[in-house]
Amino acid sequence: MAQKPTIPKGTRDFNAEEVAKRSYIVETIKRQFKLFGFQPIETPSFENSDTLMGKYGDEGDRLIFKILNSGAYLNKVDDADYQSKSETLITPKISEKALRYDLTVPFARYVVQHQNDIEFPFKRYQIQPVWRADRPQKGRFREFYQCDADVVGSTSLFQEVEFIQLYDAVFTELQLKGVTIKINNRKILSGIAEVIGAQDKLIDFTVALDKLDKIGEAKVKEEMRSKAISEEGISKLQPLFDLKGDFGSQIKTLKSILSSSAIGIKGIEELEFINEMISNLGLKTAHLELSVTLARGLNYYTGAIFEVAAPDGVDMGSIGGGGRYDDLTGIFGLTNVSGVGISFGLDRIYLVLEALGLFPEAITESTKVLFINFGETEASACLSAITKLRQHGVVAELYPDSAKMKKQMTYANRRNIPYVVLVGEKELQAKQFTLKTMSTGEQLTLNFDALLAALI
Amino acid sequence: MAQKPTIPKGTRDFNAEEVAKRSYIVETIKRQFKLFGFQPIETPSFENSDTLMGKYGDEGDRLIFKILNSGAYLNKVDDADYQSKSETLITPKISEKALRYDLTVPFARYVVQHQNDIEFPFKRYQIQPVWRADRPQKGRFREFYQCDADVVGSTSLFQEVEFIQLYDAVFTELQLKGVTIKINNRKILSGIAEVIGAQDKLIDFTVALDKLDKIGEAKVKEEMRSKAISEEGISKLQPLFDLKGDFGSQIKTLKSILSSSAIGIKGIEELEFINEMISNLGLKTAHLELSVTLARGLNYYTGAIFEVAAPDGVDMGSIGGGGRYDDLTGIFGLTNVSGVGISFGLDRIYLVLEALGLFPEAITESTKVLFINFGETEASACLSAITKLRQHGVVAELYPDSAKMKKQMTYANRRNIPYVVLVGEKELQAKQFTLKTMSTGEQLTLNFDALLAALI
Repeated sequence: MAQKPTIPKGTRDFNAEEVAKRSYIVETIKRQFKLFGFQPIETPSFENSDTLMGKYGDEGDRLIFKILNSGAYLNKVDDADYQSKSETLITPKISEKALRYDLTVPFARYVVQHQNDIEFPFKRYQIQPVWRADRPQKGRFREFYQCDADVVGSTSLFQEVEFIQLYDAVFTELQLKGVTIKINNRKILSGIAEVIGAQDKLIDFTVALDKLDKIGEAKVKEEMRSKAISEEGISKLQPLFDLKGDFGSQIKTLKSILSSSAIGIKGIEELEFINEMISNLGLKTAHLELSVTLARGLNYYTGAIFEVAAPDGVDMGSIGGGGRYDDLTGIFGLTNVSGVGISFGLDRIYLVLEALGLFPEAITESTKVLFINFGETEASACLSAITKLRQHGVVAELYPDSAKMKKQMTYANRRNIPYVVLVGEKELQAKQFTLKTMSTGEQLTLNFDALLAALI
Repeated sequence: MAQKPTIPKGTRDFNAEEVAKRSYIVETIKRQFKLFGFQPIETPSFENSDTLMGKYGDEGDRLIFKILNSGAYLNKVDDADYQSKSETLITPKISEKALRYDLTVPFARYVVQHQNDIEFPFKRYQIQPVWRADRPQKGRFREFYQCDADVVGSTSLFQEVEFIQLYDAVFTELQLKGVTIKINNRKILSGIAEVIGAQDKLIDFTVALDKLDKIGEAKVKEEMRSKAISEEGISKLQPLFDLKGDFGSQIKTLKSILSSSAIGIKGIEELEFINEMISNLGLKTAHLELSVTLARGLNYYTGAIFEVAAPDGVDMGSIGGGGRYDDLTGIFGLTNVSGVGISFGLDRIYLVLEALGLFPEAITESTKVLFINFGETEASACLSAITKLRQHGVVAELYPDSAKMKKQMTYANRRNIPYVVLVGEKELQAKQFTLKTMSTGEQLTLNFDALLAALI
């Protein structure tokens, strides 16, 4: 029976070129993770539902892919629940496992489960796919990779410093020069909220402030008023609207605004420490920028907040982000474990490298030489030569059938194979190989050693 | 709320050492796949249910993990079906996606879907996890990796020859010497069935024959009789019971048994061709063995059948297998595409390498040097040195907190970090580094260049 095959929306097939390009990015990230002393772990694709549910808010719960129990799964649904025909009641009875939604919660679960085998501080990296039942959009998928590095078990700010270095190292190695690493601190935002008397409106005012670049000062103030932030509070924010300049001068302004807030002052100290260290160490190609409006992950970040923007002129959202969370593992019963981590956005980095032509050509090269098949005897001799070439690291193939010459040459052309070797009766007797360079048409007749030398 | 975290049965967490060892195997396989001209593809973790269902038999359908639809999924179940409370009726309504069960069906779907972008013969490899709701057992998991290489679009037997070389190359590179590559041919089995007049009992007699080593000739014959295979047929099998010796002499016996069967003779010719080629080319460390009782995958294999056994003395099932199938893509409407492929059993290869102590020590080395933290000023200087070491490829870490010396040394010990560097006030002033070798306790005070030279 013929079916027209498709794949589920929001998922992707990757061909050889795409796999090679993705793997170039992933291997670069991995190499730097390792250089910085991070150790790899892997967790199962699905977790018990109660490990994941309730950890990402209601919206998150909705977007988690649930796996149907096996066998006579409806037996676990009692009659009353069944008659209700309510997904809320029935889902937990017929589904006990779910696909991982991110790498952070499985990591927290891992740390708690294996706490006796782990040396703290624990620096781990994890590069695996995650799944979300999100509405698919351009650049948003239902299956995508996350590339995370985290340290848990220490509150040292040296880790924030190292994560900035890590971003710099990865993007420099990818030749993606001039990324901006934006940094903020949750404590700064809490301090501002305190100063303007809006501790309970942290989210409201940060959401409004975040729009400053887009809608301008007047409209931001309007939005704040609409959220019942007082005129007095808004006027105290005035220096924030005028906040400009380098890290140092922004810090100066913040100090004047936050002088009365203990938590605000703590946030400033942390930012100053990080900035001083980075200034001393220097960055290779990235810029560190203080961004007081940066407010991602306010539900869990308690200290530093990071976000990385592509170089100027590339229209792309953030290509990385992260921050410090003071109680990652508390949800699983292990308290007082502070952590800090960052993530690389593989799909967006891919798009940026593609747009800027930064993928090295060599990564998509595959087969270097195709041996044309003139029949069993000739092909058999070719396979001997191919075997030896492979032992020297040359990617070589035999066209499997003695098809028409034209068909075999077309195959080599379409696959972008740069060389073909022809071994006909004449070459066979003389133990020679005719090497043809596809781009120029040039042909040379060589013995095996010369062939190897030409291809290696 | 504290929860005791666990993972679903049949799944696994992998720690750094396990990830490194698995990745050593996978990277070795990948390198050889590439050398042989195979190109990587990746497919989504879940497929539309109708892509997978019905492709693996009833048992397979049962073992496929189904994903619950999102949102108000019960709306799609009409009242009659709902009142039946029958999983058979309800499952297809509430689940439209399923986790991939193997890599072969998704590959077939990929080939058909992308047939216009593919050059045939198409040599692809794919290394991704698959999921089966099997009862977990020792060495059998619900999530595990498959490592497959296949060629589709050619019937050339040179491909069978190359797959044997590929097995040999991979296991040789893994230092797993002396594996046995067993080969059989479905056509031989069909020929035998024809000769003994039991064409319709192919499975019955191969299942019985397969037990020869375990239960002996008399009991095998008994089982055949119980399956209504005639005395005359069984007597024709007599030479098979006595089948011994090398490839050549087994072929001779088969020729006498199968002289009246066209398909049997075809199978013999194929085996002879492959054996001749391999004899000419030579194998590095593996042995090729004709095994007439080998009968895996009879539902789909139409030509060669492969299975790889670990070296003598290692009690492990097959560590690889494969074969030729004449109509892989027919299920998706693209007919006449012959394919042949092999698979490597990652988990079992891991167990074999572990049992034989064949993992190179270097693969599990991680951090080479830990810088002890004596406080902010010293640590800051250390971080400069660490940054430079990393730029030279040395995996270096700073202990993030200025904890007690003993705690930091214990950390280095437990993590098996071979060197620590101490930079106290004295070293700081002299711009020097005290390098301690953990195994010997030896200490040297060095400038940076000498430190780098010692660690690189």
